[in-house]
Amino acid sequence: MRKNLSKQTIQRMPYYLQYLKGLWDDGKTEVSAPFIADHFGFTEIQVRKDLASVSSVQGKPKVGFRLFNLIQDIEEALGFRREHKMILVGAGSLGQSLVSYREAHKIGAVLCAVFDSNRELIGKTFSGMTVRDIRDMKAYCKENNIHMGILTVPVPKAKSACDAMVKSGIKAIWNFAQIHLSVPEGVLVQNENMTASLALLFQHLDS
Amino acid sequence: MRKNLSKQTIQRMPYYLQYLKGLWDDGKTEVSAPFIADHFGFTEIQVRKDLASVSSVQGKPKVGFRLFNLIQDIEEALGFRREHKMILVGAGSLGQSLVSYREAHKIGAVLCAVFDSNRELIGKTFSGMTVRDIRDMKAYCKENNIHMGILTVPVPKAKSACDAMVKSGIKAIWNFAQIHLSVPEGVLVQNENMTASLALLFQHLDS
Repeated sequence: MRKNLSKQTIQRMPYYLQYLKGLWDDGKTEVSAPFIADHFGFTEIQVRKDLASVSSVQGKPKVGFRLFNLIQDIEEALGFRREHKMILVGAGSLGQSLVSYREAHKIGAVLCAVFDSNRELIGKTFSGMTVRDIRDMKAYCKENNIHMGILTVPVPKAKSACDAMVKSGIKAIWNFAQIHLSVPEGVLVQNENMTASLALLFQHLDS
Repeated sequence: MRKNLSKQTIQRMPYYLQYLKGLWDDGKTEVSAPFIADHFGFTEIQVRKDLASVSSVQGKPKVGFRLFNLIQDIEEALGFRREHKMILVGAGSLGQSLVSYREAHKIGAVLCAVFDSNRELIGKTFSGMTVRDIRDMKAYCKENNIHMGILTVPVPKAKSACDAMVKSGIKAIWNFAQIHLSVPEGVLVQNENMTASLALLFQHLDS
């Protein structure tokens, strides 16, 4: 079941998922749209629209949605029920912390290898992953059929690292470097825009 | 100079800033809107609109904008030229990596203290910051006039940690826990929605 979800819908889904799983853990088996809407401060229409976009489960009047099926459908639509192999490029402090980022494992993101160009990091082991030489990345990705990568190198190295990833057959890049990356058509760069998050918080405090 | 910027504009700004600083470092002193537009794949109108929203610097025909002033104005509008004191709650692996997150320091985010409720972490030191008992957070924030905090606790602890932050006078929360947090009016929660980023990358690869 492939759905064409908007970016906005996808961004709301992990919050629904977390909430619905919490209800399930609390022993609930059904949930109503108004109940969900109330929790998030969304309209009931928004909730019904969001859920209908990922699930064909129909809510029953006065009972609601069956939680088990709804959770399964959301996980399926988000791709969390399949394994996605990936590499990480940049074994500095941020990269090291992402190696042990448990949430990613839970949703099917399988980190297979870590690469860096820094001689002082190559060969070192973090959370059970040994850092490999970035020059071996292309061969590794081809051999293991990997098309997704996390980019956690410093800004001055981001462009060349990104180019090397593209040449290695990476089609989806999770970019933590605060820089605009130009990639060929067919390659998606998802920016983790942490500086912008801070700017939004600053604005709230300063206003 | 306080500008009322949209979330979308703020999110584009760090990329402009990074790019313009790179040009400055390369020895350039002026830049034209078409040149910037070409780099990002934006329209020239979008670039002019974005820059006008943060800067009164006028581009000169055939010369462009003065880089130095433009960079200053963007930094000023984003709040990067003032210090913002903050605390961090949750000294696990993600929290530890954020303690040493250099980009945040560069833009005026000053991490003053780290808190946790875990007895095994309290008293330990990471990157020069000693983890304090979360029960001391309220007194610390009042005494040091701190209104901004980073939340990096696991999901089951996120609600109580968030409540404790609000009670401590925190008005702007950078939330890394994948959970919807209910906060009183006047408190902003900025979610770092990492699971959603992975879902967007998965969708790209699966489609």
